[in-house]
Amino acid sequence: MLKNISFEAVDLHDGFWKDKYDVNRKVSIGNVYHRFEETGRFDALRFNWKEKQQKIHKFYDSDVAKWIEAVSYLITKDKDGYVEEQKIIDDIVESMEKNQLPNGYLNSYFIQVEPENIFTLRDSHELYTMGHMIEAAIAYHEATGKRRLLDVMERCMECVENAFIIEKTAKFVTDRHEEIELALIKLYDHTGNKKYLDMCMHFLDMRGQGLEDAFGTRYNDLYSQSHIPVREQFDAVGHCVRAMYLYIGMNEAAQRSKDEKLRIACERLFDDVVKKRMYVTGGLGAAKQGECFTIPYDLPNIDAYSESCAAIGLALFAHSMQKNELDSKYADIVERVMYNNMLSAVSTDGKAFFYVNPLEIHLRSVGLDTAVNDEFKRWFPRRQRLEVFNVSCCPPNVNRIIAKIGGFFFSELDDSLIVNQFGALALDNGKIKLDMKTEYPADGKIRLVGKENTYKTLLIRRPWWCREYELKGAQVIGERNGYVEVAVGESFELELDLKMQPYFVKTHPMVRYDTGRIALCYGPSVYCMEGVDNAYELNAVSISVDADIKCERAEDCVELVVKGYVDDEFDGLYCFADKPKTEATLRFRPYRMFANRGETDMLIWTRMA
Amino acid sequence: MLKNISFEAVDLHDGFWKDKYDVNRKVSIGNVYHRFEETGRFDALRFNWKEKQQKIHKFYDSDVAKWIEAVSYLITKDKDGYVEEQKIIDDIVESMEKNQLPNGYLNSYFIQVEPENIFTLRDSHELYTMGHMIEAAIAYHEATGKRRLLDVMERCMECVENAFIIEKTAKFVTDRHEEIELALIKLYDHTGNKKYLDMCMHFLDMRGQGLEDAFGTRYNDLYSQSHIPVREQFDAVGHCVRAMYLYIGMNEAAQRSKDEKLRIACERLFDDVVKKRMYVTGGLGAAKQGECFTIPYDLPNIDAYSESCAAIGLALFAHSMQKNELDSKYADIVERVMYNNMLSAVSTDGKAFFYVNPLEIHLRSVGLDTAVNDEFKRWFPRRQRLEVFNVSCCPPNVNRIIAKIGGFFFSELDDSLIVNQFGALALDNGKIKLDMKTEYPADGKIRLVGKENTYKTLLIRRPWWCREYELKGAQVIGERNGYVEVAVGESFELELDLKMQPYFVKTHPMVRYDTGRIALCYGPSVYCMEGVDNAYELNAVSISVDADIKCERAEDCVELVVKGYVDDEFDGLYCFADKPKTEATLRFRPYRMFANRGETDMLIWTRMA
Repeated sequence: MLKNISFEAVDLHDGFWKDKYDVNRKVSIGNVYHRFEETGRFDALRFNWKEKQQKIHKFYDSDVAKWIEAVSYLITKDKDGYVEEQKIIDDIVESMEKNQLPNGYLNSYFIQVEPENIFTLRDSHELYTMGHMIEAAIAYHEATGKRRLLDVMERCMECVENAFIIEKTAKFVTDRHEEIELALIKLYDHTGNKKYLDMCMHFLDMRGQGLEDAFGTRYNDLYSQSHIPVREQFDAVGHCVRAMYLYIGMNEAAQRSKDEKLRIACERLFDDVVKKRMYVTGGLGAAKQGECFTIPYDLPNIDAYSESCAAIGLALFAHSMQKNELDSKYADIVERVMYNNMLSAVSTDGKAFFYVNPLEIHLRSVGLDTAVNDEFKRWFPRRQRLEVFNVSCCPPNVNRIIAKIGGFFFSELDDSLIVNQFGALALDNGKIKLDMKTEYPADGKIRLVGKENTYKTLLIRRPWWCREYELKGAQVIGERNGYVEVAVGESFELELDLKMQPYFVKTHPMVRYDTGRIALCYGPSVYCMEGVDNAYELNAVSISVDADIKCERAEDCVELVVKGYVDDEFDGLYCFADKPKTEATLRFRPYRMFANRGETDMLIWTRMA
Repeated sequence: MLKNISFEAVDLHDGFWKDKYDVNRKVSIGNVYHRFEETGRFDALRFNWKEKQQKIHKFYDSDVAKWIEAVSYLITKDKDGYVEEQKIIDDIVESMEKNQLPNGYLNSYFIQVEPENIFTLRDSHELYTMGHMIEAAIAYHEATGKRRLLDVMERCMECVENAFIIEKTAKFVTDRHEEIELALIKLYDHTGNKKYLDMCMHFLDMRGQGLEDAFGTRYNDLYSQSHIPVREQFDAVGHCVRAMYLYIGMNEAAQRSKDEKLRIACERLFDDVVKKRMYVTGGLGAAKQGECFTIPYDLPNIDAYSESCAAIGLALFAHSMQKNELDSKYADIVERVMYNNMLSAVSTDGKAFFYVNPLEIHLRSVGLDTAVNDEFKRWFPRRQRLEVFNVSCCPPNVNRIIAKIGGFFFSELDDSLIVNQFGALALDNGKIKLDMKTEYPADGKIRLVGKENTYKTLLIRRPWWCREYELKGAQVIGERNGYVEVAVGESFELELDLKMQPYFVKTHPMVRYDTGRIALCYGPSVYCMEGVDNAYELNAVSISVDADIKCERAEDCVELVVKGYVDDEFDGLYCFADKPKTEATLRFRPYRMFANRGETDMLIWTRMA
């Protein structure tokens, strides 16, 4: 099995990811903190809700938990930093310790607002919030050596074990929102206590056994992946974020328990997601209703759901699957998310976030709906990012994923170092001192300088989009499952050029919304047109597959200038198809940067001329 | 103002429309009768519901009324025929006469099932069913001279006048489903009693004044065109059939009252419908929910609603608008409906009907839905026609429109005979004996032989799709608003050739579902591919605008054989757009004939190569 190399061993240089990392560190983390303070999310855990009488949500703890987790990763890379944040966290932890129930139960909402309903409602996110708090506790312990929050959560897990496994006093058998499963695996790894692996297995085994409170009125069991036992699940269904968190838990559990059925289910689910249900941006979720997967190949653009948390979940799922076998398809998916939906989720200034990431914006359509009632009015996603949401799971999820971004780059197998992602950074894991220089994703040239190297070979991912590459400074042994294998000595200098040219992709013919359309891409980045750069009805624009494309280096990205066409306006609905078109020069910019220059139209899938 | 020439003056020869007429006469009429007997629709009006204890609907009367209307038109053209049908009708009328309430009220459901709720619920279709029964009464009186049903309905209108205008005892001011308005105009024309025109005006004036029972829970006022006063309505909204019936009533009222505001509203509404909300087949209705118009240019294919009654309503609306001014755009729309959605509504054998006319069928997508609950499950229209529906408004609507099809062909203006539609038929209206020979829509050649002609000129519509034509036997004076003007003498022989070649249309760029796609047409007929002829994933097929197309005369239609391409299958969602395609020979048949050879895929809008 492969091993992923932790972000702790990776230092980002100046460059693309360092910039994102710094915006996250300097702006986003603080901004999310202040919004969460304003909305009482921290106060909830200060257990002063009664005095403040603020609105408090069942899942507030998970928002704070993800923020603590993010800060912990930053501390890990900067041991003396974040003194104020540590103070905030330590105070919160003290309050949690004080207010945790004698039996160990901990959820700020239920303790303060509905103590009578503890562990009675399956949809109340109690195990979900505990799961996120476990992830925070582990990260904070690793970062600071402080184990107080960890102790709090271990006591809390005793309460969970009693309520769900030993005394079975809980009124439901699995949480409607998965997360505890993957958290328990992390807790097992961190503490070495096998009980947590067993608890994870228990929750996985109980799922879809028909024992759940059906809760049928609003949602069915597909919604929470509770329709059949997990080992029989081969089609991705229901709420996308819940699905991703479940699949990660399943795969991590399979890796530790050697549960073949579980592993096979994960492989089938992964392929089902990426081959039938994934947006070109790495987004997931076709339907707002239930934030769900719908039918295969159902990927609407203008009313896409594509929740930020779902894309992040997919990257984490692929990152986990990557350990099962050497196959570049996993890192290809991580890359697709990293450079597209993961970054479209946050504004370039780091202050605001998308919960839903549309794949098309068409302002003229918005607000025109005359459906017979509000419930059935056509829904359009927001066109601008917000600083905080009522349900604000996405912002701190972006915080923690970017704070830990270094963990996506490398893994190892036997005597081979695997280079999964590309960026300007240094790796020092005791087995190699590796320096990677590149302008990726603006350019495909990558310089790899290794010192004190103990690996026999490098396995460098050849991205799926890379039709041609050149490697200097070492001899290529061959290609293995999408990785270029290179023999290396104790020190080496490699020059790899993943020839980066603009290219068009098309979808599988069953993606009805996109047939007859193409998406312009450059390296790992999906591109889009915005109204602010292209003063046309974007759906009137068409491009030929062999269009002339110029790359222009803008200060913030590579822009692509394309010679295309615009349909001449016509009055009415239908006209002869051979009606002439007018030539037009079109400007495309990376999708991840859309909606940063005011409200304007946006289109990825452009008509084929 | 133009005058439409009645179907009474038109005799269909052998040929396209005579075949449809005969299938309707020999099969459909009888089939609908038997289905309606089986489902108790006739028994409802025999007022023996209590004994039979059958299910009975508020709107059953309107189903029977449309059937009576259809039979009446057939009798008009065959005075000695339909003896049995007349017997059935006379018995029903006798029963209606007997059971009509003393005050004249007549609705078989409310009299038998909910007498306490007469005129209390706006959504109960009482005025709607009465309106259809008025149309039936007039048609039956004209056909047979029997005025008993007419008397019944005139008494019924006294009751309506009392309840809604004089004593105002009714609990609502306008019916949620329009129809009474246009029926009252017909009753005014037929009886010459101005009271009926005033009643029509009353219902038009009361609509959208904020006086309606809002009925807000399920539908809003847009649904029933009650959101604003009718003279201020410029955008078509809500339930499509209701909208069409209202607009017809508005336009007919405007013509008789010289109400300019009303006429202008109708013109705006007509343009809004045909320029922003009409399927290429002449269908209307984007949303199943509410059977409604949604936002402009929102014309989904696979889950189109496109109710048969709405298309018929559009043809009747255009036929009414045609009298306002000489403009071929109205007859162009009638033609679009006649050769496409009006005929797709009924099976070629005449036995079964579509309520909803999908523009695409994709069997692989059906039943795969995993939406979170049934209410939000993606809805797919039926793929096969049914003989009867729970709500079965469409079958008898097809019966009556085809029984009266001859009425669409001619109108007159001053000394000009206007030829709006083309078919093998004879016109004898006392002003001309005209014989029209043509294989239309299989061929564009039309032979017109006139005798005893008193018209000075012919105005022959040049269809919008006709780029080139040739006329022999008379000299063309010029073109007037889409009509070719020809001077003719007391007798004449013309040879008109509307050059008919296959052609592709594209949609307005804002029709998102169809951009990058083209629809193959031939003359007035929209064509489609069916799986039974094309063993491909139809969405993988692409055609170039200048594709090589062969016309093949099949026994039942002209088939079009096109050289196109099929995308090579690929695993996954996204691939390079320049991936090679395979050549394929594709067979297209008229859309009106789809789904007559078993369940199979169907596609109109084909990807552009």
